[in-house]
Amino acid sequence: MDNISYSTYKNLIDNHILDFIPEIDHKSITVYESMKYSLTAGGKRIRPVLLLAACEFVGGNSADVKGAITYACALEYIHTYSLIHDDLPAMDDDELRRGVPTNHVVFGEAMAVLAGDGLLSTAFEAMNKDMLLYLDDPVKLKRRIRAIYEISKSAGCRGMIAGQVADIEAENKQCSKEMLDYIHLNKTAALIIGAVRAGAYLGGANEQQLRDLTGYAENLGLAFQIADDILDICGDEAEMGKKAHNDQKKNKSTYPCLYDLEDCKEYLSELTETAVSFLESYYDEAEFFTKLAEDMAVRVK
Amino acid sequence: MDNISYSTYKNLIDNHILDFIPEIDHKSITVYESMKYSLTAGGKRIRPVLLLAACEFVGGNSADVKGAITYACALEYIHTYSLIHDDLPAMDDDELRRGVPTNHVVFGEAMAVLAGDGLLSTAFEAMNKDMLLYLDDPVKLKRRIRAIYEISKSAGCRGMIAGQVADIEAENKQCSKEMLDYIHLNKTAALIIGAVRAGAYLGGANEQQLRDLTGYAENLGLAFQIADDILDICGDEAEMGKKAHNDQKKNKSTYPCLYDLEDCKEYLSELTETAVSFLESYYDEAEFFTKLAEDMAVRVK
Repeated sequence: MDNISYSTYKNLIDNHILDFIPEIDHKSITVYESMKYSLTAGGKRIRPVLLLAACEFVGGNSADVKGAITYACALEYIHTYSLIHDDLPAMDDDELRRGVPTNHVVFGEAMAVLAGDGLLSTAFEAMNKDMLLYLDDPVKLKRRIRAIYEISKSAGCRGMIAGQVADIEAENKQCSKEMLDYIHLNKTAALIIGAVRAGAYLGGANEQQLRDLTGYAENLGLAFQIADDILDICGDEAEMGKKAHNDQKKNKSTYPCLYDLEDCKEYLSELTETAVSFLESYYDEAEFFTKLAEDMAVRVK
Repeated sequence: MDNISYSTYKNLIDNHILDFIPEIDHKSITVYESMKYSLTAGGKRIRPVLLLAACEFVGGNSADVKGAITYACALEYIHTYSLIHDDLPAMDDDELRRGVPTNHVVFGEAMAVLAGDGLLSTAFEAMNKDMLLYLDDPVKLKRRIRAIYEISKSAGCRGMIAGQVADIEAENKQCSKEMLDYIHLNKTAALIIGAVRAGAYLGGANEQQLRDLTGYAENLGLAFQIADDILDICGDEAEMGKKAHNDQKKNKSTYPCLYDLEDCKEYLSELTETAVSFLESYYDEAEFFTKLAEDMAVRVK
């Protein structure tokens, strides 16, 4: 992998983010507008970027990476649906996301529920449709089936949804480190792990590559959430695109509730180092992943 | 197909309905309780029954039917998620479903949103996991890929969700027959068509069988919704398990808003006849499907 920059992958995603939404009849076009609104409201695209990078890292050629865009965008659809539902008044009741009003503020609650449902459904419809193109290519088909299973598992009731359930139930409660790790590992890390593993399968990873990338992703995923928790306390509102001290106001269970800020930063450093260590034996080949983890840790310093 | 009764298939579904939910950690077990509550609250199981019946009708053997149970239950997960979300205060705001309190009344709105998301995710996770078992059986694998695509398409933004979007937007409006057909064809018929087509693929249908079953399902699906609309006006509350005149109170767009009751019953008869006519050339072999359509029409007489 030749030092491909984050923005190369991100641009690919940004350019194709609406491509896998099926043509929707004008009689129900509002759901398209609502999905499009949230899909194009910015965002770092970290999950789809990781999917494409993992695909290329394990040896996927340019056709593999191109073919992986469907799965990368599907992953962003899933992430976006989770944000729309998470922002609902019955859930986190957020009115601002990425610097613009949340979906239900613009389209109403009913349409926001349906736009979320629509994005989750579209993610699977797009990946399933893609598989029809590979019915006579057993190697690529198997890779796709493994990738879609990784994505569905990480988004489901043993993954992201489990984390959201535990997060909601832990509100207003003093929460143990074990519970906090559980919430973060599922709410945030699961989809990041799913992204990396799906990308690895799509690129034809061997067992060793898969194990190393999984170790990296687990630690990166936790680091990512802790960085977010820290930023909620000391970040700049304009830069974050949302209100600061949001977690605190909602009595959310976060690391800074349990530990002082310096300990949180220390934990973040440890996780970053551990993440990077999983890919040490690949030397410069892993530069993209190393840089990504380190940049994230630097962001909160 | 030897005159298998509706209850044979329904019992299969009832006995396996919880089998495809993955093991969920106790830290997020509430979402399991919430999903289980709605999955076991009764219901006719018409979609999964149709899937199994279609699989057997086209020549699927007992192993094919057994293998199709995953897809049948996944379809019921999708149907159930749509009911949970549909009942939310922001949507139809229903407090009673199948004679028991709706999901959000028991588990709260946040958990109901997540239980719906969980069921939709679990449906795809279960089907994707099943495909892993057939990686080295290209014939059965292809049938599964086609089946899962049918299901995802029918549940998505060109199917069920499109219908729900149009339904919400048509509230409190005078609605044309074209719009009404669009709503019903998508909100209700789509998943019934998806069920029949997915079952047909899983049983190894040929093109002609697929076309005939699709024609049957389109008409059955519309008939099913019109029967429901009529029952909302003249049905028995105890039998329906929900309040009568619900549609009227919410200014929902239904056939009885547009036509008098006798015309609606006439339209129902026509659709039933057309549905049955698609399977005429199969004679007694199609008895299950014929009886199902006719029983439904009789229910509202």
